[in-house]
This record gives sequence, structure tokens and C-alpha cells, in this order.
Amino acid sequence: MLQVRIEEPLPAQYTTPEIPVAYPDPALIEQAMKVLASAKRPLVIVGKGAAYARSERETNDLIGRSNLPFLATPMGKGVVSDLSPNFIGPARSMALQQADVVLLLGARLNWILHFGRSPRFNADVKVIQIDICPEELHNSVKSSVAIQSDLKPATKMLLEAIARSGFKFNDASDWWRDLRRKCESNRKGVQAMSMDVSTPLNYYAVFHHVQEMLPKDCIIVSEGANTMDIGRSMLLNRLPRHRLDAGTFGTMGVGLGFAIAAALYCRHHEPTKRVICVEGDSAFGFSGMELETIYRYKLPIVILVVNNSGIYGGVDEQLYNEIKDDSEPTTTIPPTILSTVTRYEKMMELFGKRGHLCKSIPELQKSLKECLADTQGPTMINVVISPTADRKPQTFAWLTESKL
Amino acid sequence: MLQVRIEEPLPAQYTTPEIPVAYPDPALIEQAMKVLASAKRPLVIVGKGAAYARSERETNDLIGRSNLPFLATPMGKGVVSDLSPNFIGPARSMALQQADVVLLLGARLNWILHFGRSPRFNADVKVIQIDICPEELHNSVKSSVAIQSDLKPATKMLLEAIARSGFKFNDASDWWRDLRRKCESNRKGVQAMSMDVSTPLNYYAVFHHVQEMLPKDCIIVSEGANTMDIGRSMLLNRLPRHRLDAGTFGTMGVGLGFAIAAALYCRHHEPTKRVICVEGDSAFGFSGMELETIYRYKLPIVILVVNNSGIYGGVDEQLYNEIKDDSEPTTTIPPTILSTVTRYEKMMELFGKRGHLCKSIPELQKSLKECLADTQGPTMINVVISPTADRKPQTFAWLTESKL
Amino acid sequence: MLQVRIEEPLPAQYTTPEIPVAYPDPALIEQAMKVLASAKRPLVIVGKGAAYARSERETNDLIGRSNLPFLATPMGKGVVSDLSPNFIGPARSMALQQADVVLLLGARLNWILHFGRSPRFNADVKVIQIDICPEELHNSVKSSVAIQSDLKPATKMLLEAIARSGFKFNDASDWWRDLRRKCESNRKGVQAMSMDVSTPLNYYAVFHHVQEMLPKDCIIVSEGANTMDIGRSMLLNRLPRHRLDAGTFGTMGVGLGFAIAAALYCRHHEPTKRVICVEGDSAFGFSGMELETIYRYKLPIVILVVNNSGIYGGVDEQLYNEIKDDSEPTTTIPPTILSTVTRYEKMMELFGKRGHLCKSIPELQKSLKECLADTQGPTMINVVISPTADRKPQTFAWLTESKL
Amino acid sequence: MLQVRIEEPLPAQYTTPEIPVAYPDPALIEQAMKVLASAKRPLVIVGKGAAYARSERETNDLIGRSNLPFLATPMGKGVVSDLSPNFIGPARSMALQQADVVLLLGARLNWILHFGRSPRFNADVKVIQIDICPEELHNSVKSSVAIQSDLKPATKMLLEAIARSGFKFNDASDWWRDLRRKCESNRKGVQAMSMDVSTPLNYYAVFHHVQEMLPKDCIIVSEGANTMDIGRSMLLNRLPRHRLDAGTFGTMGVGLGFAIAAALYCRHHEPTKRVICVEGDSAFGFSGMELETIYRYKLPIVILVVNNSGIYGGVDEQLYNEIKDDSEPTTTIPPTILSTVTRYEKMMELFGKRGHLCKSIPELQKSLKECLADTQGPTMINVVISPTADRKPQTFAWLTESKL
Repeated sequence: MLQVRIEEPLPAQYTTPEIPVAYPDPALIEQAMKVLASAKRPLVIVGKGAAYARSERETNDLIGRSNLPFLATPMGKGVVSDLSPNFIGPARSMALQQADVVLLLGARLNWILHFGRSPRFNADVKVIQIDICPEELHNSVKSSVAIQSDLKPATKMLLEAIARSGFKFNDASDWWRDLRRKCESNRKGVQAMSMDVSTPLNYYAVFHHVQEMLPKDCIIVSEGANTMDIGRSMLLNRLPRHRLDAGTFGTMGVGLGFAIAAALYCRHHEPTKRVICVEGDSAFGFSGMELETIYRYKLPIVILVVNNSGIYGGVDEQLYNEIKDDSEPTTTIPPTILSTVTRYEKMMELFGKRGHLCKSIPELQKSLKECLADTQGPTMINVVISPTADRKPQTFAWLTESKL
Repeated sequence: MLQVRIEEPLPAQYTTPEIPVAYPDPALIEQAMKVLASAKRPLVIVGKGAAYARSERETNDLIGRSNLPFLATPMGKGVVSDLSPNFIGPARSMALQQADVVLLLGARLNWILHFGRSPRFNADVKVIQIDICPEELHNSVKSSVAIQSDLKPATKMLLEAIARSGFKFNDASDWWRDLRRKCESNRKGVQAMSMDVSTPLNYYAVFHHVQEMLPKDCIIVSEGANTMDIGRSMLLNRLPRHRLDAGTFGTMGVGLGFAIAAALYCRHHEPTKRVICVEGDSAFGFSGMELETIYRYKLPIVILVVNNSGIYGGVDEQLYNEIKDDSEPTTTIPPTILSTVTRYEKMMELFGKRGHLCKSIPELQKSLKECLADTQGPTMINVVISPTADRKPQTFAWLTESKL
Repeated sequence: MLQVRIEEPLPAQYTTPEIPVAYPDPALIEQAMKVLASAKRPLVIVGKGAAYARSERETNDLIGRSNLPFLATPMGKGVVSDLSPNFIGPARSMALQQADVVLLLGARLNWILHFGRSPRFNADVKVIQIDICPEELHNSVKSSVAIQSDLKPATKMLLEAIARSGFKFNDASDWWRDLRRKCESNRKGVQAMSMDVSTPLNYYAVFHHVQEMLPKDCIIVSEGANTMDIGRSMLLNRLPRHRLDAGTFGTMGVGLGFAIAAALYCRHHEPTKRVICVEGDSAFGFSGMELETIYRYKLPIVILVVNNSGIYGGVDEQLYNEIKDDSEPTTTIPPTILSTVTRYEKMMELFGKRGHLCKSIPELQKSLKECLADTQGPTMINVVISPTADRKPQTFAWLTESKL
Repeated sequence: MLQVRIEEPLPAQYTTPEIPVAYPDPALIEQAMKVLASAKRPLVIVGKGAAYARSERETNDLIGRSNLPFLATPMGKGVVSDLSPNFIGPARSMALQQADVVLLLGARLNWILHFGRSPRFNADVKVIQIDICPEELHNSVKSSVAIQSDLKPATKMLLEAIARSGFKFNDASDWWRDLRRKCESNRKGVQAMSMDVSTPLNYYAVFHHVQEMLPKDCIIVSEGANTMDIGRSMLLNRLPRHRLDAGTFGTMGVGLGFAIAAALYCRHHEPTKRVICVEGDSAFGFSGMELETIYRYKLPIVILVVNNSGIYGGVDEQLYNEIKDDSEPTTTIPPTILSTVTRYEKMMELFGKRGHLCKSIPELQKSLKECLADTQGPTMINVVISPTADRKPQTFAWLTESKL
């Protein structure tokens, strides 16, 4: 019978000793140092390899001591805090295009990084690549320096090389000036949208005000299209391994399962830490019934559905015409949007609880406060935004296309 | 772009002509006739192969003219109506055990039919097997007559042999008398439970009263454990291919997808026909979010969740003890059951509709009437039954065990 | 230990009863009859499906009574004897191109039959297809009549329809006259080459004189390129299932293994029947070491290597130039061919036996006579032919190309 | 057409840069040094991982400076010369059983090393493991120190640690004395057999006299059962990557293909180096026809078939009885063995050449001399040994059993 509980301890030969890790070739670290030192427009990209290698201390020290600007991949976020003065996420497109040296710390040149190729990257960019997997080395573009190593020792040794050489990227350089200007101007655009609390709401206003209230150490789970993409830049990570999303292959339906796993981990290891699950309405539909599992296990997950009342990216003109002749099942939007939005928060009533429907920022603030205060089980907010809400205007068409 | 609509007709070479079917060896039909004619306690088992072969007319004529008693496999139900005087489902266990000749019409001796072996079958039973798949012939037990053929021509030719021979199984035989007595006594037991409308309700009372109201030609989709098993005997099929359930391998999570497919078929081909989806509460959890799909496509499916407030077969004593120490997430039952039952019907409120919570037969009758009258989209009934409701007492332990 | 011998008989439940076969729809047989009767230029193609179905008696009767011309696929050969007056193999190309009705008896329209398409077939040809596998019906081209059935009962029923209808294709028809003329003219061409016994020998001379001496009931195994292709038309089969070759996918290396299997079968079931294994020199190289197996098991297989001293189809001009500069390992031919031919027959000396090297027809006749008289184990003839020997001139380039 | 020759150079993006390798954790190297220094009965095992990593210089320096005794796995042979005074192969069983510390340099504890377990290993043995593959670390037995690294830098760093520490294992230690005594006594036993040149010959006599004549830098390819096992200890390797055999999974049939590959490599890169292919008679049968390929490509491979006239390990008593009644095809041995041995060397006559049949040591010496002098193409020696020849007596039954 498979349900019997085994009390005997696992025999020693089946236990797992700590895994020794691979170190880098010291000579290649020196080469990497030289290439870095020669850079006029250097850029560090921190990938989830750095998070998995638990190299956060080394990575933070490296960024701090070198004064290099950095970006993070979706699940590489938080290895170095999004609040670091060296984080130049708002200038991402410019940084990728103009950098002359890119240091990849456990990040890979796949579609998320536009394969490292022109026109998204400088055609002459020199790549310094540190990766645990030899098959990834020189992948997509040839690296100037390719290093096979676990990230933790490699980052530490590169940090030591930086310390020895006295290298510190000039804070007054043209590159830092340009990046900061670009960050500033993009932040202003985002801020304008964030402060636009008119209803129906837009993505930026929602995420901005959610961000203000989230516990600084919470685990953020996310999936969706615009919800995941915009939320990634608006919801901050200060800690490594605190963001779980649809990942390299964009797999939908994983959000609630990830949240359950994270919450069970927290229950046993960090009972005061919270899990926030930010879902697009379409993404939520893949496995929303897991709410019952969450309830039965009494996991205090806050589920936030960002609801633009449309499956697959809101409405566009063609779709709107189809709506008029009532033939399109991927949207539920009739003439008056807010009267007929899908009320996902009602799912809480399956368990005799109440969810939150929020159409305005004050409602959202009040509801999120209540949800965060409730540690007895799941809570849920259905925040209604405009079906025509979208990302901030993109100067680069490929940015959007590359996600398809 | 994958979303473009193609208006050109399919080139002729890619169209599918009608598939010619395989016929049986006429000599084997004669042999089958002889074995049938020699039977003292014959039994016909109609499988889903007969339904897929669309051999209902031939099968009904065969049963009618031969006066043979028959059973049906889960999805073989309805090829001959459950209301046929020859249907001896209530005497299933006795019929399998005592039959001396079994005629398999597209039914296979897998676990659903206890592999055709003793003690569930007579060890000396002679099997007449008609199947399209040669690998299935003589499978599990050796057949006395094995016939490779599509079911439709084989049944027709066997019917003709019966007609030629004048064979008609004696209605006054001991076998018919025993089967009828057993059916009668089992029906009385079921009837007693069906009429027990005390609350919390039991399975039989629910299904009996649902059955009274269902359209005679509706398509029944079902999945679950007890819900599917008991519902199979209580909800009648008069038409072939009108029952879709978890199938040979007992796959859970298929119910709502099956119902959507059936309803889309009906929309285009039989717009007045209704689809009823009967789900255990655990089964519903696998893909309950498909309710949103059903709503968006405005499919008039009636979803009936038979809710015993427990995942995996209600509660037993051990489980009840675990409930008391509040540690068991597979049930939500506290001291007062009805105050905390999972309110699946609330999912209708996601779309501004109301579902039905029913705790008594009158409530169920009223709600089902409303649901059947509503053809604009999905309707949903959450009928609460006792967590300790179970099947009628089984004389044969293996009957239950074999389902695991 | 895997080498223990089990003496107990196999339990009854693991024995295999005779497999009942599928029959055809009688109405489709009538349709086939009508289409056949309407044909002006009918053609039967007998495939290995007919051999596997053991329908030789029915097929012979059908050909005999209907007076239809027929072809056979490589392993369909012998179901009806190659010596039948209705066999029109020498007119194959013309028959395929001009036939208006083609009856496929277990033959499939794959690459061996040029996919049934123009220009190798008449674009308006009507196909009558009898096949056991429904997925093959209407494959490549749509059939006028497609019949799912085992070949044996289907052929028998078609024969009965022919008998009932009195159908007999007119021996004095234009079609028979044209086919016979074509056969005659092609046979003359072949005969001229067969009679050309100048050395180095050509394929046709070798096969013609081998054919004269082979036991009428021998099993012919063959693989190679020209050796298999030309041998197929020159070595006659009078019995079904007496030709084993590289098959539908042209797999090389199977010849000696097939010969071993056939010889072991004969040892136990038909001890006077002989197995002849006709190999191209390249084909023999794949698994020639199996000669040791044959010797150890004392199997009286006659192995005939038809040796054109070149791997992959002899030499052409380009190759010959490469030979001159001594750089081409796929041929061993220096200025004087016969002094350096690979002496495969020497492999017999591994076992203290002598093989036969034959360069002329008298040598070949003497050697083959000795080999056929020796029943103690393998015998081997290495017959040397011209490196430039090839097929008779082809009017249709595709005939050759389609083999690639 | 696949046979066209492409003259354009490969585009740069498809070229392969040098692969950077992983380095070890320096702290683990220190730990390894400490464990080594504490050993009373240390043992190094050099695996093919060291050969693939091209770490021969580092490995030789390490053995030389540390004075540690070592063994090699089959394809790890030659990384350090078999003639090294530190090689203790003749004392293999004792060394494995009694070592208290084992240093694995690219060797894995699979079946070839008896899974590292008692009774073949000391149950308390401490393992120091260096391997490139983290999944192999702690495999089968837990290592005291497990190091993930490419072998070359890890060996170099361990060597440096040895140099720094001044560690040198005491040549006068009990362990070295015991190992040398055991080597000496086993060498005497082997020598006795090697010097027994009575006919029919035994394995040791054959290999001893072959070894005396082989070029010191030749590549040895080998497969078979006793032929491969005994040949492994008798045929010496002085250079890394100069032994190719049936490998970890004991795959038969690879010998001639390996020899062809090695000879083509030598033709292009080391034209004076020779390839010797040592085959058991059974092994040769798998792909002996490749001799034709070798001849056509004019590769000067010396093929030595060590022929005990029996498939699968010669004859035993049971087999001998079966031979008498003439029923056993896996041996060809009649009363007088030498008159009927399989004459594999006759295969040379396929090409107008002569092979060598040798029954005595003088014949073998003369033949091998001739073969080594011939560089125009393949040469072949069929050396006949006694069907009852076997390994030297084994004190450990499992040694033999573990190979099955």
C-alpha cells in the first residue's frame, strides 16, 4: 500500500553529500579581467545560473567593487537587488545595443537575450561568458573569453582579480552618464503611467501601488503575457531565488503550482515569509482550480489576478469587430466593460471566504493590506484593468515580436 | 501567421473516402451460432466497439430476435437501451459468474471485465469474441470462437444466422428466471436507497431523481470514483455513443473537455440535444476552470457536481481521526458538514450567474428543472451528499478491489 | 542460467490458436468485379501480402479463370508461377504505363511501384485495392474500389464473382496482343545477352545458366544492387514464399541471415529443399562472416557471389580515372581484371573446404552442379563478371533513378 | 548529390574554439593531499578519463614524485607506462583488497572495479575521486574527498600540493614491500606459463612472445573474452590512448572498426606508427569482413587472431560431451584439434595475399616479423592455442564471475 508512512531513517548510502563544484581556469579569469578593463561600455548580465549557484554574495561584491552597470534575466532578478544603484533595467534596450563588453554570469544568449545578435546587440560586442555547462560556451555567438565553472567560485575569483587590479569603472564615464540619462527618462515615462490612477486602471498603476505594499522579502510568482512582462520590471526583487515565473520556455499553467511549492517551503523553513502569485487572467485559467489545494493546505498565498478581460493580450481592433458580432469567445467584454468582467475573486466563496474585486487604486490598497494581514490561507484579488492597457510605447518593434 | 483563415477547399487527394470495413468469416459465424444455440446460460456483453462501429441497429435486432440477456460496458451503454427487457445490469455479478457462453460484441476482457477469469467468471465459460483487432482475439482467455471483423457486418451476419436457425432463447428458462429474480431483488435494494431522501443525501437518491428529469436523448459525461460507478448504473442510456466517461484507463480530468466537445458537436449537428456532465468533487478539481471556456463559448452544458466533501472516496474512520487533529487536506469536513462544504456552484458567479447548491431532493429537482430550461450557457448544481455515502453493500469484495 | 533446457510443455494459455482472418465486404467484391469487367487494359499486381496470406491457390485460380495479365512485386513472386502464360514481367514498364485498371492483391503503391503515379502509371488508372491494413487503403492514389480484408478470402470471393459473371479477359484483345509483342521483343533482348557467354561474363549470361540448373522448388535469397534487380527477373519462382530479398526498404546485410533462417526451416520441415543465396559482392561484405555460422551448423546453402569487382555498381568513367591514380578503395580492379578479383570463394578454406572461382559458363555449370550435389554444409561460387556489366538498356531513365 | 566535394572553408561561426575546462576547488585538493598523506596503504587508479583529458604529463609527474603504487583501467593503460616501477598490476587483487586510500584519476567504480565494494575492496577504504562528471561523484560508494574537475588541472594542482608538502610515499614501507613481493610471485607464475612453449600453445606464451616483438609505440586494439583479459596484462602500453578495447560495456564487434579508425589516424598524422588488432576467434567473427575494407584502403594493420577453436571460452567437459555426439556448432574441434582449426588467415587469400597459420612460438615469431615488415596493407596471423587454455589460476572466484 503506497500510503504507509516509513519511520526508519534513510540508509546512509542513499543520502546525498554536498556536491563539490567546478572551479574556473585562473588564467581565463585573468583574461576576463583584461577584457573587462579594456571596456568603454561594459555591461554585466546576471542570470538564473548565478541564483542556482547561490553566488549572491560574490556577485554583489563584484558589482559593488567594480561599479559596473548590470541587468538581470527574469529569474536572475534579486541576486543583486533591483534597488542597487548599478541596476540599469530601465535602460535595457540601450545597454544591450551599445555595450562593447558583456559579462554573462550564468545567463545564456537564448531568445530572452535576443540570441546576443545584432541589431539588439552591438555586432562587435565582446562576450565574457561564465557557465557551468560546456555545451553552452560559445553558443549563438563566439565568446571572447569562455569559462567553464560553477558561478560561485568563478565570480569570487573574478572579484579577487578586480580587487588586485584596482579596477573600478569610472562613475563619471560617458557610459554611466548615458545609462543614467536613459534610466531617468524611461523611469519618468513609467512614473507617469504609474501615477495615472484613472479607471479603468493600467498595468503600471497597478504594479506601482502593489510594489509599495509588498513585504521586502516576499517570493513573487508570476505568469501571463503583459502581466508577467510588465510585472517583471515593476515588482522588485531584493533577494535571490525569490522570483519564479514561466521561465525560459514561457510555459503557462505553472504559477499556482510554483506558489504552492514556495509556500510549503516557507511553512517549514521561513514561516513569516509570504508568497505573492501575480497572474494574468488567461494564465490563471490554466490551473486556477489549484486554489482548492491551497485552501485545503491552508497556505497563506496572496493571489493577484491582473484582469484585462481578454485572453491573449487584451483587445485589438480586429478583435473588437469580432466582439461586436458576438462571435469571439476569448474576450467577455460587452459595451460596458466593468459590469461583466470575469469575477475570479468569487472563487474564494467556494470555501466560505470572500475575495476582493478592485477597480481603483484605493480599493486595491485596502484589499492588499487585508490579504497580507491574513495568514490563515489563500487570499485573492481580482484587479480590473483596461482591456486596451498595454506596455509603454516601445521604440523597438522586435522587442515585442521576439516574445512570440 | 497561424491565425489566418483559409478559404480554399481541401484538395481532393487529401480528402478521406469512406473506409471499407472488414467482414467476418461466414463459417465462424456458423460456429458462433452453434455455440450460442448450445448455451444453457448465455450472456451478451456489448462493448464500446459496437458503438464505434455504429452497429446499433444490428445489435438491437440481434438481442430482440434472440431474446438473449445482455450487459454493456461503460461506454457500450446505449447501443441497446438500458430500458430493454433483456438488459440484466442489476444481476451483473451473477450473470458473469454463472454464464456458460458469453458473446462479446466489441467488448474486451480487460480489468473492467475482470479479465474474464474465475472467480468472477465461470471457469468453464465459452467465449464467442467479435473484435476488429486481431491482437485482442484470445486475449486473457482463449475464445471458443474468435472472429476478426468490424462489428456491424459481423453482428448483421450473426443476426441472419439466428433468423435462419430460428433460435430464440427460452424466456421461460431457468436462466431467465434466475436473472429476473436477481434483477428484481437488486432493484429493490437500490430502490430503497433511491427513496431514502433523508439528508444528507445518498448517491442513489440523487441519481434516481436526476434520472427522472433528464431528457431521454441527452449525452451523459461522467468521471469520478463512486460518482462515476454508481451513476453508471443509475443514469440510463437509450442511445449509443451518448455516454463519455473516464474510459478503460480511468483517466481523471477529462470530463469537462469531453463535455465541451460533445456540446460543440451538438451545436452544429443536433442543437436541441443537451449535455449533462456528472462529476465527483475530486474529479471536478482536475479541470474545473474549463467552466470559463464553456461560458465564453456559451455552451448549454449542465454540470452536476456530486459532492461528498472528500477527495478520494469520502471519509473512513482513520481519515476521520486525522480530520479531528486538523491535519488532513483531502477533506474539508468539520463537525457540521453542511456549513463548510466546498461551494463549487459559486464558480458560476465568476460570470455574473448563479449556481445551485442543493441539499435535498426538492431543491435538486427545482434546480435541475431551471438548468435544463436554460440554453444560454453553462449551468451548475452542487449537490451535497453524505461524506459516508457509499455503494450498496457488495457481496463480492473483489468487485471493489478490482477498481483500484 | 540462460542455457538450461526446459522440458515441460508450454502451458495451454500461452499457445497460439489459429488466427481468424477478416473477410471482405461482398458488395465491394461486386463493385471490383464490375470495374474489372469494364477494363480494356487490365493488370493484376500480386504483392507479398498475397504470399503472407497464403492465398496462392485462390490467386492462381483467379489468374487462370480470368485470363488477366499479371506482374509480381519482388517478394510477391511465385504466388503465381513466373512461368505462367499470364505473367507479363518482360513488359512491366509498358503494362504499368498503359493499364486502365490495376488490381492490387496485397501489393502497395510505394516506391517499388513508383507510388502509382504518372508518368510511370496512366494518370487515369482505376485502382482496385485489397489490403489487410486499413491505413494502406487509398494511400498515394485514391482507389476506385478499396477493400479491407485478408487476401485469401477476398481473392476467393473475387474468383467466385468472376466465375458467376463468366468474365474472361479476351485472349485476342489488343491489350494481350500488345503485351505479348512487348514481352517477346524484350525477351529477345535478354536472350541475346544471356547467350553472350564471352568473358568477362555479363549478368544475364550468368543468371540464365544458373536458372537452368536450379532445383525448381529451391528458396532464393538475394541482395545487392544490379545482382538483386537483374536476378529478380532472371531467376524464376514457381512457389510462393520462396524468394527472400532486401525488401521494401532495400536493407543490405540481410542475405546470409535470411539464408540461415530458411535453411534451418528446411532442415526441420523440408529436408530435401535447397537454399540458394545470390549476393552482389558489395552486399556479401556486410555479413559474409556468417559463412562460419553456416558451416558450424552444417547448413547446405549454396552461396553465389556475382562479382563485378566493384562496390556500388561497378565502374564508370569517373571512377575509372580515380582507379588509375590508385586512390579509390571501392574497386580492386587494376589493368588486368581477372588477376586481382576478390577471391570470396577462398573463405571456404577457413574450414578446410574449397570454393569455386568461375570465369566462364562451363566453369559455372560444373561448379554449380557440384555445389548442388553437396548436402553436408555450405558451398560457395565466386562468379566473375565484367566490371562494366549492367542492366539491359532502359527506355525510362526514372526506372533506374527510382531505385536510389 | 551526396558525393560532391565541397571546397569552401567552413564559415567561422561553425568552427569550434578550444573548450575551456573546469578546475577543481583548491581546498578539496588540500583535503585530498591530507587524506593521501595519512594513508598507510595508498593506491592510485588511473582511468580513461585521464587519457581523454590528456593529463599524462601531470599524471606521470604525480606518480613519480609521490612514489605511489598505481593500477590502470583497461583504456587508462599507458597514461603512465606499464613499465613504470610504480605499476603494480600483477598485485591487482591484493592492492584493491588491502588499500586504505584509493585515488581515482578519471576512473569510475563500475563493474570493472567491482563497484568499489567489499570483499574486493577493503570495506573501510577511503576514496579520493576526481571526475569531470558530477553525477559520478560519490557513485556506488561515498568518497572521502570528491572533486569535480577536468583531470588535467586537478592532477596538476594535486601534484603541486604534493611538491609543496614534500610528500613521498616511503619506498621501504611494508605496503611497498608486500606489493613487490606479490608482483614478484605473480610474475613468476605468469613467466612459467609464458615460457611453456609446448604445443598446443597457451595464452601466456603467445602474448609474451608477441610483446617482445611489438613496436614500443604501437596502438593495440583488442576484443574477446580471455584474449582481451589476458592480453590486457601481457601486452604493454607505454603511451596514453594507445589501447582501444571493448570498453566499459564489453561490446563485441568493435575491434576491426576501431583498428581502421586508428590506422586512418596514423596514416594522416603518424605514418610510421603501427596498429595491432588482437582478436579472439569468436570476436573476429562479428566483423571479420572488414578485412576487405582494410585491404581496399591499404591500411597496414596486423590482425592477430588468438584461436582456441571455440566460441565462448573454449571447451569444458559438458561441451566436450556434446561435441562427441556432433551436435554443438560453437566449436569445430574433432578428435585431432589442429587438423580442423578454423583457418581465419586464409581470408588474406581473398586478395591474393597469404596469411600466417602459427602453431608454435618460432612460427609465430617468424610470422610476426614478416607482418611488421609489411606496410602495404593488412597482414594476418591465426595463432592456434589449446582449446583448454585458460587464465592463470585465480584465488578469487568473483574475479571471473564479475565479468559475466
